[in-house]
Amino acid sequence: MGCIESNVSAGFQPSASADAVLALVRESCRPLEPERVPLRDALGRVLREPVGAPEDQPPFDRSAVDGCAIRLDESSNQFRIVDEIRAGDWKPRQLRPGEAVRIATGGALPGDGLQVVMKEDVQAEGALIRLTRREAGRNIRFRGEDARAGQVLVENGTILQPGTLGLLASLGCARPLVTRLPRVLHAATGNEIVPPEQTPQRGQIRDSNSTLVRAFLKQWGVEPTQLRVPEDEAAAKSAIGNPPSTIDSADLLLLSGGASVGEHDFTRRLLEDLGFVVRVSKTTMRPGKPLIVAQRGHAMAFGLPGNPLAHFVCLNICVRAALDGFSGRPSEPSVQRGVLAADLDAGANVRETFWPARWQLRDGAAVLTPLRWSSSGDLTALASANALLRVARGAARLAQGSPVEFISTLPFP
Amino acid sequence: MGCIESNVSAGFQPSASADAVLALVRESCRPLEPERVPLRDALGRVLREPVGAPEDQPPFDRSAVDGCAIRLDESSNQFRIVDEIRAGDWKPRQLRPGEAVRIATGGALPGDGLQVVMKEDVQAEGALIRLTRREAGRNIRFRGEDARAGQVLVENGTILQPGTLGLLASLGCARPLVTRLPRVLHAATGNEIVPPEQTPQRGQIRDSNSTLVRAFLKQWGVEPTQLRVPEDEAAAKSAIGNPPSTIDSADLLLLSGGASVGEHDFTRRLLEDLGFVVRVSKTTMRPGKPLIVAQRGHAMAFGLPGNPLAHFVCLNICVRAALDGFSGRPSEPSVQRGVLAADLDAGANVRETFWPARWQLRDGAAVLTPLRWSSSGDLTALASANALLRVARGAARLAQGSPVEFISTLPFP
Repeated sequence: MGCIESNVSAGFQPSASADAVLALVRESCRPLEPERVPLRDALGRVLREPVGAPEDQPPFDRSAVDGCAIRLDESSNQFRIVDEIRAGDWKPRQLRPGEAVRIATGGALPGDGLQVVMKEDVQAEGALIRLTRREAGRNIRFRGEDARAGQVLVENGTILQPGTLGLLASLGCARPLVTRLPRVLHAATGNEIVPPEQTPQRGQIRDSNSTLVRAFLKQWGVEPTQLRVPEDEAAAKSAIGNPPSTIDSADLLLLSGGASVGEHDFTRRLLEDLGFVVRVSKTTMRPGKPLIVAQRGHAMAFGLPGNPLAHFVCLNICVRAALDGFSGRPSEPSVQRGVLAADLDAGANVRETFWPARWQLRDGAAVLTPLRWSSSGDLTALASANALLRVARGAARLAQGSPVEFISTLPFP
Repeated sequence: MGCIESNVSAGFQPSASADAVLALVRESCRPLEPERVPLRDALGRVLREPVGAPEDQPPFDRSAVDGCAIRLDESSNQFRIVDEIRAGDWKPRQLRPGEAVRIATGGALPGDGLQVVMKEDVQAEGALIRLTRREAGRNIRFRGEDARAGQVLVENGTILQPGTLGLLASLGCARPLVTRLPRVLHAATGNEIVPPEQTPQRGQIRDSNSTLVRAFLKQWGVEPTQLRVPEDEAAAKSAIGNPPSTIDSADLLLLSGGASVGEHDFTRRLLEDLGFVVRVSKTTMRPGKPLIVAQRGHAMAFGLPGNPLAHFVCLNICVRAALDGFSGRPSEPSVQRGVLAADLDAGANVRETFWPARWQLRDGAAVLTPLRWSSSGDLTALASANALLRVARGAARLAQGSPVEFISTLPFP
């Protein structure tokens, strides 16, 4: 960390733009293998098979109301009840003229060529019933009217939401094939950090990044293995690589720290020692300049700049792209458009800036309120940020109402 | 369920509009008591205390770069390194002219009246260093520049997102006070339903509502107790009320079933037997007409119409409002505006219709694609629905581009 060594390593690699980092990550992170999980564990997962109807939907003609089934060609207004069908019953029979069957909503029609008259339209007369009104409608949900057997109802690649899971259940797909979750290892370095429940001594600050990383990943259903590693290469390497199965089986390695050049070099050397090839060691993103992106086979590693706001930006842009890639989530347009709800003095920075903001729909349009931040170490904006404004390099003052690009940090597009 | 009994009970209560149901639910469901939870369990929860900075943020003057600290009034360009400060160190000292201290990013400045020159701007010359360039900026993040001790940084009522949790960690709030989660009991009735993994016999269908309810609640962090109860009042009552603690401690009781008039009456009687007062037993919502809303003290119960699409609508509109109320979530405008991406033939229905749709942002505007549905029993639209279009009663054909109101079914606004 000495201030008199020249920073040789950083000189070899040009700074990568956010777009270049994203392109690299998207190209590198391919969908992990699929696995079957029970429906109760499948929320938010990505389906890896098309799911079709195993039989016609509905599978039989069902009554849409509580009422009485009679022949469609019935001319009389008076009937004798010959049977009663509840939902779940299967009682096929041939109705004769003058005969009716009581039937409940969802009950299977006893045969073809029938109509159901609503209970509100019939009156009891001793052992008989009399029609008081006869609708044109048949009040039947016909076999196959929603879908035919074999028809694909949930496409390969669908993100499984509650409604989709209900549909899968109705189709008998009790263990859908979905992409497995990535195994993530997260190590926080930094001699100055103490756990949040501990009072920092002078010179120390509390570790906020471990909490941020854990909660960020939880949105995607991922529970990381988390470590604190000392800022000593041999010790860090042994902590991360021990047992070797932990690092060898990880799909994604996240290292928090590296805000300073010294720590940056430490992270870089550590990744190389662990067998990773560094692909990016510096970006033009602000915050996020010292981001490191590295690869080892199919595994991806990110050295996340220790400053909390830089962490937030790199997680929501780069790590999110990696999670999307690993899951096989269809690549939605991650950059959205909106308009500024307030003036923004963007400071004409030489780097592309990802500015914390809050977005909402107002009268059908996405509007963005930029939040105040003093530096990449300032995380007060994270109290309410749900978006990152993408401010082009050199942009100075953006007036209220200006069109802007943004990235939502919510787990849904 | 016989079709000749007149439907006396339904006649006593007028049909409630969606707005009336929502007003009732919002008035009835008050925030549950708060509890302290560890940060790792607090994602998505609602904060019930303002959280302020325990000390100035940053708590001390910190270097923003790797470099050398020198006196601000320094006139020389040549210095002797007298100390080295890493992040986490606390080494106060008075620097004399001609003296410099190596300092890493995040390191605590040794005193006042200093400037940090970047390591890129100095050169080693034997035991001395020479400045090659001197910036005007001081490269220091000053104590208190983000926030002052005692200043509230996270407001009471904030929904805890990953960034907010990171901020709380940095403030030493390791066990935030949040609203406890509601205890939810879900009972599915219906003699015709079989579990999704079982092949239905003729007349039977698979239970999709239990899967839908479970996944819906999971989005809010709620894990319900789930039961199958027989369509027999005494047996159902004993299943739900046994042990009595289950029903007595539930904040929310959901009953699936009741699509038919017979089942509707069954659900209603069951709720009354369990001590609930029925507030709504019929609505003007489509789908969702037979929805029952009932109360017992602070507990709320919903008798959800068995048809899957009606379930989806009632969960996302009425039950969501109850969850919002119980959690103390700030009442965001739940109805949003957008425009239709395609023509919609709404059929001029006499009831207000909640039409399954898919919404997305396109060039900064919310656009909605209506999905096909044949009846409230048709759940094929749920493969991709993420919104419900609110179609006014009597609306016939709505052309592409028409302004519409919708409710997002995503767990975020």
